Amino acid sequence: MKKEAEFTLSCPLPIAEYPTIQQAHGGGGTLMHQLIEKVFVAAFGDDSVESRHDAARFDLPEGSLAFTTDSFVVKPLFFPGGNIGSLAIHGTVNDLSAAGAQPLYLSAGFILEEGLPMESLWAIVTSMRHAADEAGVKIVTGDTKVVERGKGDGVYINTSGVGVIPPGIRIHPDRIRPGDVLLVNGDLGRHGSAIMAAREDLGFASTIETDSAALNGLVTALLEAGIDVHCIRDLTRGGLGSALNELAETADVGVEVDENTIRVRDDVQALCEVLGLDPLYVANEGRMVIIVPEAEAQRALEIMRTVVTGEDSFVCGKVTDSDRGIVLLKTGLGSKRVLSMLSGEQLPRIC
Amino acid sequence: MKKEAEFTLSCPLPIAEYPTIQQAHGGGGTLMHQLIEKVFVAAFGDDSVESRHDAARFDLPEGSLAFTTDSFVVKPLFFPGGNIGSLAIHGTVNDLSAAGAQPLYLSAGFILEEGLPMESLWAIVTSMRHAADEAGVKIVTGDTKVVERGKGDGVYINTSGVGVIPPGIRIHPDRIRPGDVLLVNGDLGRHGSAIMAAREDLGFASTIETDSAALNGLVTALLEAGIDVHCIRDLTRGGLGSALNELAETADVGVEVDENTIRVRDDVQALCEVLGLDPLYVANEGRMVIIVPEAEAQRALEIMRTVVTGEDSFVCGKVTDSDRGIVLLKTGLGSKRVLSMLSGEQLPRIC
Repeated sequence: MKKEAEFTLSCPLPIAEYPTIQQAHGGGGTLMHQLIEKVFVAAFGDDSVESRHDAARFDLPEGSLAFTTDSFVVKPLFFPGGNIGSLAIHGTVNDLSAAGAQPLYLSAGFILEEGLPMESLWAIVTSMRHAADEAGVKIVTGDTKVVERGKGDGVYINTSGVGVIPPGIRIHPDRIRPGDVLLVNGDLGRHGSAIMAAREDLGFASTIETDSAALNGLVTALLEAGIDVHCIRDLTRGGLGSALNELAETADVGVEVDENTIRVRDDVQALCEVLGLDPLYVANEGRMVIIVPEAEAQRALEIMRTVVTGEDSFVCGKVTDSDRGIVLLKTGLGSKRVLSMLSGEQLPRIC
Repeated sequence: MKKEAEFTLSCPLPIAEYPTIQQAHGGGGTLMHQLIEKVFVAAFGDDSVESRHDAARFDLPEGSLAFTTDSFVVKPLFFPGGNIGSLAIHGTVNDLSAAGAQPLYLSAGFILEEGLPMESLWAIVTSMRHAADEAGVKIVTGDTKVVERGKGDGVYINTSGVGVIPPGIRIHPDRIRPGDVLLVNGDLGRHGSAIMAAREDLGFASTIETDSAALNGLVTALLEAGIDVHCIRDLTRGGLGSALNELAETADVGVEVDENTIRVRDDVQALCEVLGLDPLYVANEGRMVIIVPEAEAQRALEIMRTVVTGEDSFVCGKVTDSDRGIVLLKTGLGSKRVLSMLSGEQLPRIC
């Protein structure tokens, strides 16, 4: 991990002279080239030198390739604990990690709205660089488009990523077996709650920070210790509830979750109650469910707790042979209820 | 190339029941899953099965990896000869091809505006599938976000792509040498003109079709014939003029272009005159400049003309040792003028 000091980059573009994004920044001429050189390449560093050309080129270590894409439209752009830029890096790193891949190279595609303050853009790209450095990935290629005022919302970012799955590793829903144990790396519902609280129109004074974080270190720790990880799913849109329903259906197994062990912070619980939300369906951006064989569950949990992003890991439930395709929640009172796939309107623009 | 009949897919989603995109289509619940299964997976086929999970996994042939990203915000979404979907596939295939890579796998990230007609989305995704099949690439992973009305413009698409550069191939501006010959695979300025003409507010009745096409077959033909291609650049935003200026600067060479040999269709020329545009700076989406050693130029030209996307290929100029960093245009009258990098406002939202 690099030192904080290295990230206090100053913008080579004189922001006072170019205070906002103009249509011409997307036109292919000198203004666009200036933006690429003095903002994107300046922030992302020499690793992104190929962003000036059409495609980045590199050689990969042995293994299968993993490839993923994610667009980010979160509103507001800045929120407690992060912004759209750090979120975009974490999201794509975590998608690759959930496939058992070592994340290596990311792309960054920007759709900028005319009038976006250049200062905001610089803050976003420097936090992308910071997040990428922390996760040990490189932003190697990019693209910029500009849309008119009222046809975007500040900035939308697409990050795609490639990584390598080491030989012998296969993390997939079809490996889930009855008896497997579900581990989660920390308290739930924080990202969605932080975003909702940050929306001005709700008018909440809240100290909830996003859980957004890169989880490749957590997964690597398990794989390097030889844990036979069967499946991983990151708990983004739709939260734990939706992820487990997808897995139960795909793997054709039952899933039983223990409400007593699930961690939700008091402030998150309180906010969700006010908003009428169930924290089990609220998005996280630094949380995964990791499914391992029962015999390795205790050791896996101990390993997870040694990693900073897994200090509060807990056993969340188990895979069963009965009630296939269904997720059951064992409530605090000992009864069981179905935790169904949520339908209809959910929190929009959380990521 | 597959038969046309295979692309007349019917949408498994009952469009009459779900006529437009709703916010909940991006929420992570049942509506989003329905959209993924019955629109995206239905159109992109089983190859995109991994789009249901976090990352696609595959093994690559020998070679270096090429990786690229492109976001598409073209307006209008549908225009003569194509739409935002086919354009997104062609653009990313061509970025990879310009690096000498065989394009293999693409991602598709959608930012949908609430209210987008489902019928438009289906037309777009089926033409993406068609274009991908024609180019021999697979769409293997995807993502969907929904933004409120007035925060987008129908649909924005990001396509990222990976491909493999065969061992021994290196196509890069630093290989450009004085004496090299510049080849272009067809008439210029068509895509930008087609888009401008299609914009309702201009009120033109025009028959100009985009030149948008996948050019991987053209590049493969040259490489398989053993042509020592030094550099390729696709002539998108900023057109030939901007691309050559970038290359002259990056490679620190002079470039001399012969106006007499450059092909611009009469209707394109006429439209550009009305709009006050220079077709040499207007975007193309199926055109490349291919730079080869002088000794191989004639053979390369003959090979290009055997490929359907290169039938109208021509010699556009040469690389010189003098006037480094500068592009000179030899005009029809025999004089020379500098073809400078265009500054300021250009055609917005052409791609």
